[in-house]
Amino acid sequence: MKTTAKPIENLINQLNKLPGIGSKTAQRLAYFIIDMKESEVKNLSESIIDAKLNVKECSICSNFTDEDPCKICSSSKRDNSIICVMEYPKDVEAMERTRCYNGLYHVLHGTISPQKGVGPNDLKIRELLKRLEDDSVKEIIIATNPTVEGDTTALYISKITVPLGIKTTRIAYGIPVGGDLEYYDEITISTALNNRRELK
Amino acid sequence: MKTTAKPIENLINQLNKLPGIGSKTAQRLAYFIIDMKESEVKNLSESIIDAKLNVKECSICSNFTDEDPCKICSSSKRDNSIICVMEYPKDVEAMERTRCYNGLYHVLHGTISPQKGVGPNDLKIRELLKRLEDDSVKEIIIATNPTVEGDTTALYISKITVPLGIKTTRIAYGIPVGGDLEYYDEITISTALNNRRELK
Repeated sequence: MKTTAKPIENLINQLNKLPGIGSKTAQRLAYFIIDMKESEVKNLSESIIDAKLNVKECSICSNFTDEDPCKICSSSKRDNSIICVMEYPKDVEAMERTRCYNGLYHVLHGTISPQKGVGPNDLKIRELLKRLEDDSVKEIIIATNPTVEGDTTALYISKITVPLGIKTTRIAYGIPVGGDLEYYDEITISTALNNRRELK
Repeated sequence: MKTTAKPIENLINQLNKLPGIGSKTAQRLAYFIIDMKESEVKNLSESIIDAKLNVKECSICSNFTDEDPCKICSSSKRDNSIICVMEYPKDVEAMERTRCYNGLYHVLHGTISPQKGVGPNDLKIRELLKRLEDDSVKEIIIATNPTVEGDTTALYISKITVPLGIKTTRIAYGIPVGGDLEYYDEITISTALNNRRELK
């Protein structure tokens, strides 16, 4: 007998669509939500639609923002001679958490991937090149991930920016700090080997 | 620099309150939601508030339902001489999935737990006893979990129902079907031993 109440079933189905939320977890979450206070449920429900409706891409750097231009692009405290190129907005957050970088960002919203049918024109590369026109940018740091797609994208961008006379760098890839050689794969270790630095 | 857009941060905080959703998962879900289609986000948001507002407890069995009495209580196909007592609504779903039980249910919404300050009056035990008044119920199956609280609750109920002349049983606890003795703890194994049945 189909006994689950329709609204519960519907909620379970909706939650089940989220990444990493299987049917068991969706069920647990649904019953938890029903047991929450009504005001808390309202907050949750509203925060979801609010994030969708009020978060836009910054017209300069394409990072997610609720004001345009975003806080970083409009800040006078950031070094605007340097742009760090990221795959996704969440990567910007990861970089900001380091508190080691004070330049600007540019979010591509993906990587070049012939397999997924994503070409350079599907990314925010044109917008990046436009930012280079006024000569204030002296360096581009490409911080795409060390994957085939990330490498391809980095290469594609550098092939354009290097001839423009802009210093183009890529963050280092190797053994993570605190990591143990024993646990890393051959490619990570060989990358670390190839990227070795002279101690002086 | 605090750079995450307010609505994203707010959504992450809200998701972070759900059970099993840590800050990393909350962040991943939030960015996923922002990338979803607006109509899908609306569905998700509405299904949450809808489930909270439209799901009530059945006035007879206290199971979650969107119609009162619930489908099971109002069904003419169910055996109304037998009531299975459950801790939570999700336990009813688990039992229904077996397709082996055709009686009615009663959901306690918890167990007696002095530690958590939950006494018999905080549970739907009075409502259960009221259902026994008209003599149609011949058996009560107590299906609380095999925990200290579940055992206490089962004992408490049976102390009332047995003197009323109502057959009171408890589902069997032991080694799960397909389980391997090697992997179960001493208490499960000793329970299985004590509950052994004669083969005829």
